[in-house]
Amino acid sequence: MSGSKKKGEPRANQYAYPGLDRVIHERARLSVLTSLTRYPKGLRFNDLKALCGLTDGNLSRHMQVLQEAGLVEVAKSFDQNRPQTTCHLTADGHKRYMEYLAVLEQVVRDAAAAVKEGRSATAGAKS
Amino acid sequence: MSGSKKKGEPRANQYAYPGLDRVIHERARLSVLTSLTRYPKGLRFNDLKALCGLTDGNLSRHMQVLQEAGLVEVAKSFDQNRPQTTCHLTADGHKRYMEYLAVLEQVVRDAAAAVKEGRSATAGAKS
Repeated sequence: MSGSKKKGEPRANQYAYPGLDRVIHERARLSVLTSLTRYPKGLRFNDLKALCGLTDGNLSRHMQVLQEAGLVEVAKSFDQNRPQTTCHLTADGHKRYMEYLAVLEQVVRDAAAAVKEGRSATAGAKS
Repeated sequence: MSGSKKKGEPRANQYAYPGLDRVIHERARLSVLTSLTRYPKGLRFNDLKALCGLTDGNLSRHMQVLQEAGLVEVAKSFDQNRPQTTCHLTADGHKRYMEYLAVLEQVVRDAAAAVKEGRSATAGAKS
């Protein structure tokens, strides 16, 4: 597909989103990162679990993926002799979340435009 | 977490998005569905592949998932004796894409608010 195409014609990679980082895009991990962005001082494991509506096992699994990717950190401590796990976003995690968010905003804009242009195309065919 | 919590405190399931349909949310499938929404009269397999920046194998695999979920249809025909595959969104596919899009818009709004509120929390801690 070359640059000589008319307006409205398919463009190569128009709806390809290489910036839609798969580590972040996964639904549960998107919930986790949004929660940790909201609470930059960190969240206890149980609070994070509740915010995201995840089970223990699910949150543990996704936290491990995010830790391995360097997006989050986990700190173990004791509160009144009870072990406590606190989860934080890393500086790199914040940066990558912001980059992802910019792409996601573009996806939403493109999708809204696609709905509108698609409707015009159908209306044009019927008239 | 009860309803008596102060404003700004974690709320159960605040960032859980059960409506973020996993079949649609996957990056390549989101590209495919946005393309087919833009071109409701259907797209040839090769045009769809170019729009989404996918390989033959990748597009085939994702089209199969979308077909099994009833979101898209594939029609085989001949154009000047050459076999041609045309891909369409189904009525149910359109409906589910629109529902997904409403949730995705909410995710983007929540994320933008989380970034802003997170910054305020950090600024508050420093002052």
